[in-house]
Amino acid sequence: MAKEYVVGVVGAHGVVGTQIISFLEKRNFPVSEFVPLDIAAMAGKELTFKGKSWVTKEAKEGAFKDLDIVLFAAGGAASAALAPVAAKEGALVVDNSSNFRMDPEVPLVVPEVNAQDLDWNKGIIANPNCSTTQMVVALKPLHDAANITRVVVSTYQAVSGGGGRAIAGMKEEFEELATKGSVSSPKVYKKQIMFNAIPHIDVFEEGGYTKEEYKMVNETKKMLGEGVKVTATCVRIPVWYGHSETINIQTEKKLTVEQARELLKKAPGLLVIDNPDEAEYPTPLESDDQDLTMIGRIREDFTIENGLNMWVVSNNIRKGAALNAVQIAETLVERNLV
Amino acid sequence: MAKEYVVGVVGAHGVVGTQIISFLEKRNFPVSEFVPLDIAAMAGKELTFKGKSWVTKEAKEGAFKDLDIVLFAAGGAASAALAPVAAKEGALVVDNSSNFRMDPEVPLVVPEVNAQDLDWNKGIIANPNCSTTQMVVALKPLHDAANITRVVVSTYQAVSGGGGRAIAGMKEEFEELATKGSVSSPKVYKKQIMFNAIPHIDVFEEGGYTKEEYKMVNETKKMLGEGVKVTATCVRIPVWYGHSETINIQTEKKLTVEQARELLKKAPGLLVIDNPDEAEYPTPLESDDQDLTMIGRIREDFTIENGLNMWVVSNNIRKGAALNAVQIAETLVERNLV
Repeated sequence: MAKEYVVGVVGAHGVVGTQIISFLEKRNFPVSEFVPLDIAAMAGKELTFKGKSWVTKEAKEGAFKDLDIVLFAAGGAASAALAPVAAKEGALVVDNSSNFRMDPEVPLVVPEVNAQDLDWNKGIIANPNCSTTQMVVALKPLHDAANITRVVVSTYQAVSGGGGRAIAGMKEEFEELATKGSVSSPKVYKKQIMFNAIPHIDVFEEGGYTKEEYKMVNETKKMLGEGVKVTATCVRIPVWYGHSETINIQTEKKLTVEQARELLKKAPGLLVIDNPDEAEYPTPLESDDQDLTMIGRIREDFTIENGLNMWVVSNNIRKGAALNAVQIAETLVERNLV
Repeated sequence: MAKEYVVGVVGAHGVVGTQIISFLEKRNFPVSEFVPLDIAAMAGKELTFKGKSWVTKEAKEGAFKDLDIVLFAAGGAASAALAPVAAKEGALVVDNSSNFRMDPEVPLVVPEVNAQDLDWNKGIIANPNCSTTQMVVALKPLHDAANITRVVVSTYQAVSGGGGRAIAGMKEEFEELATKGSVSSPKVYKKQIMFNAIPHIDVFEEGGYTKEEYKMVNETKKMLGEGVKVTATCVRIPVWYGHSETINIQTEKKLTVEQARELLKKAPGLLVIDNPDEAEYPTPLESDDQDLTMIGRIREDFTIENGLNMWVVSNNIRKGAALNAVQIAETLVERNLV
């Protein structure tokens, strides 16, 4: 009989936590015992997993002792406080927050890209930022073939990246527009997001860049190597689910559009939708039901010798968060690390 | 007494035509006689200019004989058929369509950038594409100071770029969402635009690029010089008015962020809104009432030696079309060309 695991999910009632639980069920993760956890305010609530009802326990010291694996998706503060506790109590932690991603002791992993980094984990594994994950899935096969030296990326990010509160806020703006014709005051961000585009995700840091932009720069380097230089502009747009990215790359070796398209078609986790003659390309609306990262608009960049442009779309809650976390757990099992 | 002119506007009832008439009035263009014109289907309708009611005439052969200047904003087909006729009949044509922009006999002009090109006009002057206009206004002062060699641009374009029909179509999608919760079928583009992002503006051409993307490449070269290489990805997002652009530039000479910001502050047609410490930057909603092209998020690009990133927002109907057309007419007057 295959081994089964005691699996905890912290933030079981959140946008990402709900999806993690759904993926554990759909992908038939070998769960012997399921332990939903959440911050104190959410503990005691009921939820369903594999047709059975479960009561969410409070995530706190002592709650992780019997767990084999625990997936954290309860926000940065909960992860910072409790992920090290869980690891100390013997649970292998897959963390969705940004707290540990750049820690040299913590592997940052997208299974299609760098599964082997799981082998040197010391109890905590970090799940990358959503906008980085879909980009590295797309870059990896091209980088292996031609060595990417520079990336210029602009994002078109969905509000669900900000969790349930952000979704509720845009819904409120939408309803005010539908009933009153205008938005009295911004409900999610500093400015109204409905019918707008806001070049500001996460806090501003040095040099005028946002933390979200630095995540794309630094997390990509950690997974693909220091040689891959990234410059990013991250923008929020009025979309519920699905981040889109225009990615311009420069490679050491020449790749034709046809070569790039073939490499991307063969690579894991990707779906190439790229037929300009029939105006076929992915858009975020199609990511609602899609676990794969979609790529289209693959073109040669005529301004440099070895350049390509592409358009990458992925569901930020699925591959961008919950699915990747569950895939990390699956890969830990495959590699006998748990 | 200052000279006054007989001024015609073709497409007087369209989204851009209406704004042209409003700018002629607001900016007090020296009009001795006002001649609103439109395609046959729209002729005979009334409109107001300077408090008086005017009846729109049909734009056809013979209709341009008494005009000094005529501004065309009735779409590509009307311009192709009638702009040369109007020029032959002696009216100086300012054309908003893409028909004549790349014609070596036709100057393509943004007054802040290359007013001197008006001097060699042969009867027709072309108004650039909206997404190009706002970009060249932003690039010009940096190009003069440091010689721009490469531009990587991604756009976030408003539906009003598609005219009244596109605005009505997104309104229909919005109302279906508000009343029924979903959109039964796309009302404007190949895919639903509400809560979506569509990397497809104008038709697909060779190499997988769209015509809109080639406009940005070729029109920029025509105005700033062959040395300015542009690679573009043009994307439609659910915004009514105001195109946004992430612009990454590479220059021959080094420009610091501070130098760039000072150059942009002093340049005509621009409004710098760039204070990351206070999270101040422009968004398309603020372009509703704004004639200036707004710039923010000016940052050094750390991946190359001489690189900058910026975020440029402008009202696509105003500076992107109607205002620039009226400014061309004003500059023709200033330079005694009419």
